[in-house]
Amino acid sequence: MTKIDFPGWARLHQERIERVLGDVLPASDLEPAVLHQAMRYSVLGGGKRVRALLAYAAGELADADATRTDHVAAAVELIHAYSLIHDDLPCMDDDILRRGKPCCHIEYDEATALLAGDSLQSLAFGVLAQQGLNDAPAVQITMLADLARAAGSRGMAGGQAIDLASEGQSLSVAELELMHIHKTGALIRASITLGARCGNSLDSTAFDHLDHFGKVIGLAFQVVDDVLDADATTAALGKTAGKDALQNKSTYVTVLGLGRAKAFAGELRTEARRALRALPGKGGRLAELADFIVLRQA
Amino acid sequence: MTKIDFPGWARLHQERIERVLGDVLPASDLEPAVLHQAMRYSVLGGGKRVRALLAYAAGELADADATRTDHVAAAVELIHAYSLIHDDLPCMDDDILRRGKPCCHIEYDEATALLAGDSLQSLAFGVLAQQGLNDAPAVQITMLADLARAAGSRGMAGGQAIDLASEGQSLSVAELELMHIHKTGALIRASITLGARCGNSLDSTAFDHLDHFGKVIGLAFQVVDDVLDADATTAALGKTAGKDALQNKSTYVTVLGLGRAKAFAGELRTEARRALRALPGKGGRLAELADFIVLRQA
Repeated sequence: MTKIDFPGWARLHQERIERVLGDVLPASDLEPAVLHQAMRYSVLGGGKRVRALLAYAAGELADADATRTDHVAAAVELIHAYSLIHDDLPCMDDDILRRGKPCCHIEYDEATALLAGDSLQSLAFGVLAQQGLNDAPAVQITMLADLARAAGSRGMAGGQAIDLASEGQSLSVAELELMHIHKTGALIRASITLGARCGNSLDSTAFDHLDHFGKVIGLAFQVVDDVLDADATTAALGKTAGKDALQNKSTYVTVLGLGRAKAFAGELRTEARRALRALPGKGGRLAELADFIVLRQA
Repeated sequence: MTKIDFPGWARLHQERIERVLGDVLPASDLEPAVLHQAMRYSVLGGGKRVRALLAYAAGELADADATRTDHVAAAVELIHAYSLIHDDLPCMDDDILRRGKPCCHIEYDEATALLAGDSLQSLAFGVLAQQGLNDAPAVQITMLADLARAAGSRGMAGGQAIDLASEGQSLSVAELELMHIHKTGALIRASITLGARCGNSLDSTAFDHLDHFGKVIGLAFQVVDDVLDADATTAALGKTAGKDALQNKSTYVTVLGLGRAKAFAGELRTEARRALRALPGKGGRLAELADFIVLRQA
């Protein structure tokens, strides 16, 4: 059997998660219909699905059945989608464009966007609470606890709060890193470890390596995001470019400068690949995903 | 052993859930500190804790260890508290007073209130995902799925959406009932069934009776809420009274009239007690809680 190339694998799994999300989201004619339409609008038809791809890649590494990993991939994408909806609200980043479309609160209204985000978070836990994602139900309970931690005040939502508090302030590299390890990193790490938990073939040393890879690649993701925000166009990004500078936010570009930020992303890529070396197949698709994340142009 | 009277039992368990919530909420000096302070501000020191009391009462009925039921009681109170924070935001009900104190977005700011609500939802699932709430981990996974359903677009958040869509419209009794079965009823039912799932002594017939009791008492709770909103003072309620009329909302009082709404609450109380008759000890504390809910003055 010829191994499919990375772009083919990525496309296959992007299409797969799109189908899975379409299935787990309530139908758009089911009451309350407008709420369900807003949920589907915000989740479907866009995004690179980096978190889902990381989950699938980690699942493959642990010999997990992909029908199990589907649930993890969907759960992390639902959490991500909810965070984007709430992030774009007027009281937060006050944005109008997301994934090349009007934000949820522009297309619908603020109240609907608020409730759509809230409902997507509930749905994420619901999807991860379907029976049988690991042979041992107790492991699945741990997965649910891990997702709760990654999403909550000591994870993603906490990172948003640190971000808010830091607006207009000059952060050090260490403070910036702390913010992003929460804001972006926590969910990316969870995507990888939860994906791997759908299988049973990795030992605890492998999990440590995986978790370190997740930490490094989560940070790399954000460094590249900051570089692209400063470097790319709104059309290429599908969201408002140059926003960080406008909002007077500290980013890796404002703190390190564009050149050193790009170099830092490269170093993190090397570090990420090093973390994968001890894993079966040198981390398989995860190594290619690390390149995909660091070398992306949007 | 003399059985403690209901007010004593209720006070004991109100104090107990307060301690439990204080323990599961992140400390107020833990970073991000303002977010954690906002979470504690919104959850602690107030409320009748009806949902927690229902969980404890149902747990007792199923011979559950109260240290297990603690998790269910905390989870439903956290979900309830998050929903109140988001409900009070300017884009929703735009309120300023809750439990006799300024709302979270007044005391802090809108963005912090949004994130505090989001984080409380994550925390609720985290608390319910601590190992060992039922002897069978698979049952606990079902409990997590049940909470997700009760909180999400086909439960509480969906009820909010129906509520929003119905503003300024005249609802029929059936439409009003549908809204409240989602908005208030879903979480109240879940409080009861999840509490009972911490034990192992009830059969599926008993669960059916419990669930019917939950449906009826959830509705009764809302009818009484509508009566009090029309009848009581802001000082007595600890939240803005007369709000429904101001917002031109359909309530049981506007649809049925005050007298018939009060009579309907009485009928639901009778129906609730009937549902308990087949249960051990005629439903134990649940019967007294039904009275507490229907006969309360605030």
